[in-house]
Amino acid sequence: MTVASIARLAGVSAPTVSKVINGRAGVALDTRRRVEALLREHDYRRPEAVGPAAILEVVFTALESHLAIEIMRGVESVAREHELAVGFTEMRGRLAPGRGWLEQVLARRPAAVIAVYAGFSPQQQGLLDSSSIPLVALDPTGEPGHAIPSVGATNWSGGVAATRHLLDLGHRRIAKIGGPPAFLCARARLDGFRAAMDSAGAPVDPSLIRDGAFAFEDGLALGRELLALPDRPTAVFAGNDLQALGVYEAAREAGLNVPRDLSVVGFDDLEFTRWCGPPLTTVRQPLADMGATAAEIAIALAAGEQPAQSRVELATTLIVRASTAPPR
Amino acid sequence: MTVASIARLAGVSAPTVSKVINGRAGVALDTRRRVEALLREHDYRRPEAVGPAAILEVVFTALESHLAIEIMRGVESVAREHELAVGFTEMRGRLAPGRGWLEQVLARRPAAVIAVYAGFSPQQQGLLDSSSIPLVALDPTGEPGHAIPSVGATNWSGGVAATRHLLDLGHRRIAKIGGPPAFLCARARLDGFRAAMDSAGAPVDPSLIRDGAFAFEDGLALGRELLALPDRPTAVFAGNDLQALGVYEAAREAGLNVPRDLSVVGFDDLEFTRWCGPPLTTVRQPLADMGATAAEIAIALAAGEQPAQSRVELATTLIVRASTAPPR
Repeated sequence: MTVASIARLAGVSAPTVSKVINGRAGVALDTRRRVEALLREHDYRRPEAVGPAAILEVVFTALESHLAIEIMRGVESVAREHELAVGFTEMRGRLAPGRGWLEQVLARRPAAVIAVYAGFSPQQQGLLDSSSIPLVALDPTGEPGHAIPSVGATNWSGGVAATRHLLDLGHRRIAKIGGPPAFLCARARLDGFRAAMDSAGAPVDPSLIRDGAFAFEDGLALGRELLALPDRPTAVFAGNDLQALGVYEAAREAGLNVPRDLSVVGFDDLEFTRWCGPPLTTVRQPLADMGATAAEIAIALAAGEQPAQSRVELATTLIVRASTAPPR
Repeated sequence: MTVASIARLAGVSAPTVSKVINGRAGVALDTRRRVEALLREHDYRRPEAVGPAAILEVVFTALESHLAIEIMRGVESVAREHELAVGFTEMRGRLAPGRGWLEQVLARRPAAVIAVYAGFSPQQQGLLDSSSIPLVALDPTGEPGHAIPSVGATNWSGGVAATRHLLDLGHRRIAKIGGPPAFLCARARLDGFRAAMDSAGAPVDPSLIRDGAFAFEDGLALGRELLALPDRPTAVFAGNDLQALGVYEAAREAGLNVPRDLSVVGFDDLEFTRWCGPPLTTVRQPLADMGATAAEIAIALAAGEQPAQSRVELATTLIVRASTAPPR
């Protein structure tokens, strides 16, 4: 099968087929899909010199920007061993990549795509699939229902560990600030909190359970509400580190000392939380390891292997620093 | 000129020449250089389909990891307009890229390389040059002596602005924590400090000038020393934000309130400094803009254009938040 005959079958010019084979831009999505299908159907072997580009592409939503650098480090450490570059795209808060991005990726033909909490539609997955570009989800938000291989962290267990730590210190009035209810990771952390409270026989006061975005501002606003209660909590388990820092600020405003007057626990272990005042007790997501694992799966898929597991959850770890103490 | 004749001239096999032309791995550096030189000498035109890979590669030293995500955002915003992916490499603290990395980059043949405070040797620059891969330095540390086009920020002016702000608040005993003396950005910030002090007629007490690494730990250690002085400073201008957070911690240890008892100014405006307690007054480096500018220069060079200026310095801005106040 020659380029010319594929072109004839596809009803396009030979240079267009050449562009598809060589991973260059300037071919409409539909045309590219048609040509890729014909190449596969006729078992066209690309010459070694024009195999997939030696790059792993990582796509982030803005949501993950604070986590991004750790994830990139992990991906890069594995990619380098395999002589692959690591590509970076940030979608500025959109959950699904736009047509323009997809078109560019199909043209570049990376070895694989790692989507960090990015929702690809089945149609978009189909386009990547028709170009033999494997897709792996790296999902610190914990969505387990991926149709594609995915890597996450044990959010529920992290919620249990953080809550037990506060219970062990003697806290009973523990507030829980959650993330957006639509995020399964937020739900998993909250469920872990409830499980630990229940198994310790500690009552969960509904007025101490609040939901917000995974942002400093939400931690600040909800922290103010919680600290203004007549019977305020002695500890707050925040949904993530940014919320925890918002609670710090609310405590400062209220003239309360962390941890003497209020214990605070975060989630994620962003690097800078160890530099906060006081250094934050938090639950570590092994972001670099998650990136490395996603890269390994992506590279295996690109080599035509099937991953042993389609869903991997790496362990979270409680990191005790200086923001937690027994209640007064 | 055919691939076969280039191969004959280079004394290598035709598939080796093919690999060089197509940007694939598995060719020794010397061989690659010889082949690239012959291709250029004989004006060999690569077919459009095997032009440079549609990727801009960004190389970081570990030093810049806290700045990296902002820079990547800026590079990515420009790269995307030009349908380029952005590659990411972190060198884990080594200032010059290793042979392995260079070999991979030469094989991938990216459109250009942006080096973020990475020192490329003249020989390494020569290798990139012989493969027609433009190199641009993005240098938040302010080294102005690049042989290659470079983008930086106005560190000296930032030093003046921060110091004037403290002087205007009424401070006279102002301490300066500097960065590593070998970093010109550290020197520029210190010179700006001295210039502002001199022009205000404020004496510079040598015991209040200390040097350290650009790290939290150094800010903490030097902050402790400064706050233990019999006549301690009323304000500290730190070399960067991480040092400033170390000074925060030293103040907490000493039972001093920021800003009531001690004013603190940082440098960089890392995103999380607005979430610190209290939010940090600092000098903003426009990292995303610097990344975007470096990308524009790199893309222009890749298109065969000469940049209008070989050195661009973007303005720093004083961001006044809550860590500075008049002395008591």
